[in-house]
Amino acid sequence: MKPYVMGIDIGGTNTVFGIVDARGNVIASSSIKTAKHANFDDYLNELYTEAHRLIEINDAEGKIQGIGIGAPNANYYTGIIDNAVNLPWPSPLPLAELVSKKFGIPVAVTNDANAAALGEMTYGAARGLKDFIMITLGTGVGSGIVINGQVVYGHDGLAGELGHVIVKRNNGRLCGCGRTGCLEAYCSATGVARSAREFLESRTEPSLLRNIPIEDITSKDVYDAAMKGDKIAQDIFTYTGTLLGEAMADMTVFSSPEAFILFGGLAKSGDLLLKPIREAMDKNMLSMFKGKPKVILSELKEADAAVLGASALGWEAK
Amino acid sequence: MKPYVMGIDIGGTNTVFGIVDARGNVIASSSIKTAKHANFDDYLNELYTEAHRLIEINDAEGKIQGIGIGAPNANYYTGIIDNAVNLPWPSPLPLAELVSKKFGIPVAVTNDANAAALGEMTYGAARGLKDFIMITLGTGVGSGIVINGQVVYGHDGLAGELGHVIVKRNNGRLCGCGRTGCLEAYCSATGVARSAREFLESRTEPSLLRNIPIEDITSKDVYDAAMKGDKIAQDIFTYTGTLLGEAMADMTVFSSPEAFILFGGLAKSGDLLLKPIREAMDKNMLSMFKGKPKVILSELKEADAAVLGASALGWEAK
Repeated sequence: MKPYVMGIDIGGTNTVFGIVDARGNVIASSSIKTAKHANFDDYLNELYTEAHRLIEINDAEGKIQGIGIGAPNANYYTGIIDNAVNLPWPSPLPLAELVSKKFGIPVAVTNDANAAALGEMTYGAARGLKDFIMITLGTGVGSGIVINGQVVYGHDGLAGELGHVIVKRNNGRLCGCGRTGCLEAYCSATGVARSAREFLESRTEPSLLRNIPIEDITSKDVYDAAMKGDKIAQDIFTYTGTLLGEAMADMTVFSSPEAFILFGGLAKSGDLLLKPIREAMDKNMLSMFKGKPKVILSELKEADAAVLGASALGWEAK
Repeated sequence: MKPYVMGIDIGGTNTVFGIVDARGNVIASSSIKTAKHANFDDYLNELYTEAHRLIEINDAEGKIQGIGIGAPNANYYTGIIDNAVNLPWPSPLPLAELVSKKFGIPVAVTNDANAAALGEMTYGAARGLKDFIMITLGTGVGSGIVINGQVVYGHDGLAGELGHVIVKRNNGRLCGCGRTGCLEAYCSATGVARSAREFLESRTEPSLLRNIPIEDITSKDVYDAAMKGDKIAQDIFTYTGTLLGEAMADMTVFSSPEAFILFGGLAKSGDLLLKPIREAMDKNMLSMFKGKPKVILSELKEADAAVLGASALGWEAK
């Protein structure tokens, strides 16, 4: 066994990567712009050059056991990325094969939320937990489900897409997936911004948010306004948290997790989001699970969790 | 290793039990009335007497390795039944401990739907499948979830209550669990009978079902009428199957099962139920899973599946 693995997190904007040792120390890390290269070969060349710079500086040449990659819609079983709308490359893309060939090192891949769940289980808030659900609240809503200590991949490697459970069966918002009413259309950062537009149009009270051009409002703006006591902004968080808590009560009857771990930009909203989540879970929970699943915030920095989680996969690569 | 196990299925009406060999042959089986005994000790005495009669006749004394029991709300980890509204005994009831003490044989328990899933995996339609969801459509709606070849018990032993996902968030029917809008309130045999009453009251067309006192209508009556071409009865199955198919599309994003296996009285309705299920799944499925999960009917007789599934647990008992 060699002493290091490399973890790579491919996001729509940035690709973060790092060299990690067997104890989970990030020896060194760096990043490149994902979106810069419409051609995957160009992207891979830059990634290889930058990663090799890290490897040389840290005297890690020949010491990388495997590479683990977290990327949207990456399939653990096939190593392929398919239908990843946030990435610039045509799909299907045989990611694991291409990276492995370029680096001459074994590669394993999974989606970014599963990688984050692995990172949280190995180094974060889920240490010691064998049954938990990680929900990533970013531009979209992702999830990594862990049952009995193992990430749930499903029969085709694509399980754990809880951002796409339907929370509004009728008259729901259009989701990026082409359907309507998905959790992601409401409880992502973009969902919160959409709620802001809806609330401002359908209500008449004054709001700090009315000082911002309506199409420019972000979830951060809503957070800032809510923290200043803005009623509409606070109601938006209550609405978001309630929908999420109702969905989490439904998820509980599936796998009875010990905890939900919230991760990503929106999770930083703290009690603004946690309070309505917990109230909705309590109100909607099947009695046998009432009060059981904890709701906790990730303890890892976003980039660290992703790189560490991906790196954990690196030990499995062959 | 001794040559036999005993499987016991405790239902609200009957308790069925059998001696099973390592190849899954039911050597002998029998049953007693569950509901006859308000006192659990009396029930256990009758069960012991009858089971021992079977054991003696079949020369199995001292040859039973373990006893597996499937019962409503039975907890795999604790061996306890809690809040089982269909059983006549006070809860919590330390089922595994009491039966083990009485028989002098190790006992393992799980809920009836999990036991049925084990039976189906070992001897039925799920042979060779590692990822499937069993849905039992009886008086209630139960489920047994298998991921990577293992039944999902969750951190507290109570996972897999998919009859209680919410399918009508607003204005839903009252469920036996005390909440409103659960899948079970619509897609169980009793749910179908409730739909019949709603449809007959809200619609004016003639229907064969109008010849039956409205409170006496059963799901079997609805099935019989639908098979005779009755429009309202057929619409009730379409309504039931659509709600179930929508819920199954949501379940798919969780664990990406290779198949759903339908089991229980209502599953015998065949295409009346399967057609709207498949249409609703197709219409509501996230594109990455579209057309993937099969929907198949159980291949086991209800009593056999329950006893065989419970007996499979018997090998694990210690």
